[in-house]
Amino acid sequence: VFGARVTDRNSPIFVLDSGLGGLTVVRAILSQLPGERVVYFGDTARLPYGSKTKETVTAFVRQIINWGSRIRPKCVVIACNTASALALPGIKLEAGTMIMAGVIEPGARAAATAAGTDERATIGVIATEATVRSQAYQNAIRRRRRLVHLLVQPTPLLVPMIEEGRTGDDPVVELALRQYLQPMLARGINTLVLGCTHYPLLTPAIQRIVGPNVKVIDSARKCAHDIARRLDDADLLASCADDSAMQKIDAKRLSIYVTDDPDRFQRLAPRFLGFEVDAPTLVPPEVLYHAIDTRASELRPSA
Amino acid sequence: VFGARVTDRNSPIFVLDSGLGGLTVVRAILSQLPGERVVYFGDTARLPYGSKTKETVTAFVRQIINWGSRIRPKCVVIACNTASALALPGIKLEAGTMIMAGVIEPGARAAATAAGTDERATIGVIATEATVRSQAYQNAIRRRRRLVHLLVQPTPLLVPMIEEGRTGDDPVVELALRQYLQPMLARGINTLVLGCTHYPLLTPAIQRIVGPNVKVIDSARKCAHDIARRLDDADLLASCADDSAMQKIDAKRLSIYVTDDPDRFQRLAPRFLGFEVDAPTLVPPEVLYHAIDTRASELRPSA
Repeated sequence: VFGARVTDRNSPIFVLDSGLGGLTVVRAILSQLPGERVVYFGDTARLPYGSKTKETVTAFVRQIINWGSRIRPKCVVIACNTASALALPGIKLEAGTMIMAGVIEPGARAAATAAGTDERATIGVIATEATVRSQAYQNAIRRRRRLVHLLVQPTPLLVPMIEEGRTGDDPVVELALRQYLQPMLARGINTLVLGCTHYPLLTPAIQRIVGPNVKVIDSARKCAHDIARRLDDADLLASCADDSAMQKIDAKRLSIYVTDDPDRFQRLAPRFLGFEVDAPTLVPPEVLYHAIDTRASELRPSA
Repeated sequence: VFGARVTDRNSPIFVLDSGLGGLTVVRAILSQLPGERVVYFGDTARLPYGSKTKETVTAFVRQIINWGSRIRPKCVVIACNTASALALPGIKLEAGTMIMAGVIEPGARAAATAAGTDERATIGVIATEATVRSQAYQNAIRRRRRLVHLLVQPTPLLVPMIEEGRTGDDPVVELALRQYLQPMLARGINTLVLGCTHYPLLTPAIQRIVGPNVKVIDSARKCAHDIARRLDDADLLASCADDSAMQKIDAKRLSIYVTDDPDRFQRLAPRFLGFEVDAPTLVPPEVLYHAIDTRASELRPSA
């Protein structure tokens, strides 16, 4: 259990991700919620999560939340689709009364609405291998629209392409996107969920390929909406003084921790955030292991 | 220090990698050295290493070698170019008299020879971001051929493409390879080093693109040659009984340990090895952390 609910409305929001992608959620939070401060954790030593198992990703996420619970956040956001899909359902059971948010449910809800009620309505989802295999989007959408047509496509090259600095104008990105999206288009999707927080960086290229009649759902922005609503319900929205510095969407409201290579993170972060950030603080993974025994009690080394 | 030299010639060779790529080295070892047994360790929970820092990769490799030293191998092979580039120089100093091999030096030696002595001889190297940044190939080649022309290109998409199951016939792979290789070809390379143990799976496509006059150097095969020579020098080659079962290149001579997802590893391994393997044994990363304090003594958690 990660501790009881924090009732100080000026405590920060703790956002975690495997790396950079969750910054698209941070950007949406900072722009939608003018008084909030965010502490961000990027697990850059162990990324990506998208090709790994539920057990491993859950152990990683549990360590990070345990570490982050010491800053007494009023809300924990799993800003990674893979981690939301694989780890959030289990972690929620351990979270006590702490407010926990992920990216899957808000994205699924938005997609179910956007697809409309026409009987031919078809939702496409693109995501990592692990997110697809988990069936998390499929289940979350089916809970809301039992009979909607669903097509789900793993798109494992998109994250490495974005991390390499490629944009939607790059011919390799264009070709990979067409390969991934064409079969869905041929089957008539009218809604497409970007089921990974990296993908919003490719929105213009994706929208160009799917055409203007397909609604593209950005799960990062939907997640920020959801957090705003839940903090509001709990009367925990930050008091927003008439302080124009606090209302700017900039680095002053954001502190960043990473498990590897703060320099690379600082260099690439502006592409996700739209503004420069201070150098992140390094928290090597062994610190997380020493802070908590995850599965270790069950497992003894043997050669 | 990982212990003194093992003098039992029938003890196994311990081969480690971030994931699957090192199996190309295993394949070369098993086919070149008929009596040897191999214990393979793939750090699939924390892969890839190619985008991570020297400190992080060195900590991971140190943990794995410490774990592996309990099987008393006669030789430790770092079958990953990134780990060889970033971690091997430091780890060697801690290795005492244990025989340690990597993939960089054998690849660099072969390239320096293959390039020839013509003054226009130009060596190209393709590798991960971290290997390129480390300058390991550049330094290892320059030590042998001070004046040779050198061109080094990070190719971070190739590993995820190979892991997705794409081959050299895939148009996305073809396009990415042309993008990466064209500038080197325009500058007249006559030798190309495949500086990542995954890349030999794309050899036919690479050779097709660079043409028959460019010598393609497979660092995995060169590494196996090097191990054979060094074990021979130390009089540690396995005694090879007239046992045809032992001489077959198959799973009986190989045991595999992974930090995540044994099923996926078992499914993909045959593409790298050319034969089916038994299910790998899971060693979750926390076991490695509990076996050894890496940098933890210097680092205390702070929120």
